[in-house]
Amino acid sequence: MFIAMNRFQVKLGSEADFETVWLGRDSHLKNVPGFVTFELLRGPEQEGGVRLYASHSLWSSREAFEAWTRSEAFRLAHKDAGDNRGLYAGPPRFEGFDVLQQVAGARPGAAA
Amino acid sequence: MFIAMNRFQVKLGSEADFETVWLGRDSHLKNVPGFVTFELLRGPEQEGGVRLYASHSLWSSREAFEAWTRSEAFRLAHKDAGDNRGLYAGPPRFEGFDVLQQVAGARPGAAA
Repeated sequence: MFIAMNRFQVKLGSEADFETVWLGRDSHLKNVPGFVTFELLRGPEQEGGVRLYASHSLWSSREAFEAWTRSEAFRLAHKDAGDNRGLYAGPPRFEGFDVLQQVAGARPGAAA
Repeated sequence: MFIAMNRFQVKLGSEADFETVWLGRDSHLKNVPGFVTFELLRGPEQEGGVRLYASHSLWSSREAFEAWTRSEAFRLAHKDAGDNRGLYAGPPRFEGFDVLQQVAGARPGAAA
């Protein structure tokens, strides 16, 4: 399995706008081959007047993720990204991770 | 839900040793209240002669994670951490994330 993470430096004061943009979009991911889950994550404040956010998606393989980046679904999901450049202190930073080990809790259903 | 991520800068040449240490340990996580899943992740090479790795755990809430950090299970899981300091270019960097949105694939079982 493979995790694709994009890290965003959102200017303090722009957090609500950032969340509105992301929570309101259509990710076009649901039926993409090899796509497992996506999460939008709010991280800590960082130096330089920004808050870290991350988009985080799990794939069956690195190849499935890379095929998606070349697809029409990817183009549709990113076509408006330039409109919101003012929310960010810089460009997003991509990190790809290979999953070496997974441990599941004994009671995932009861974990509430 | 809450994601706790620890980022490790592993010296190039020490990757196999790092993976052996991590894959061979007992995480003591399985029965911890609120624990959902753990993943060990291998990331990209970075500047400074290091490779990024991350440990990545999903919790039912930030409170469940924080309760674990004060527990005996946490102490047991970390008691040998100092022995392997030579593998790293610096201390681990912790980042905690609140999960704002989750999207699941239409065919998670078929995602192979």
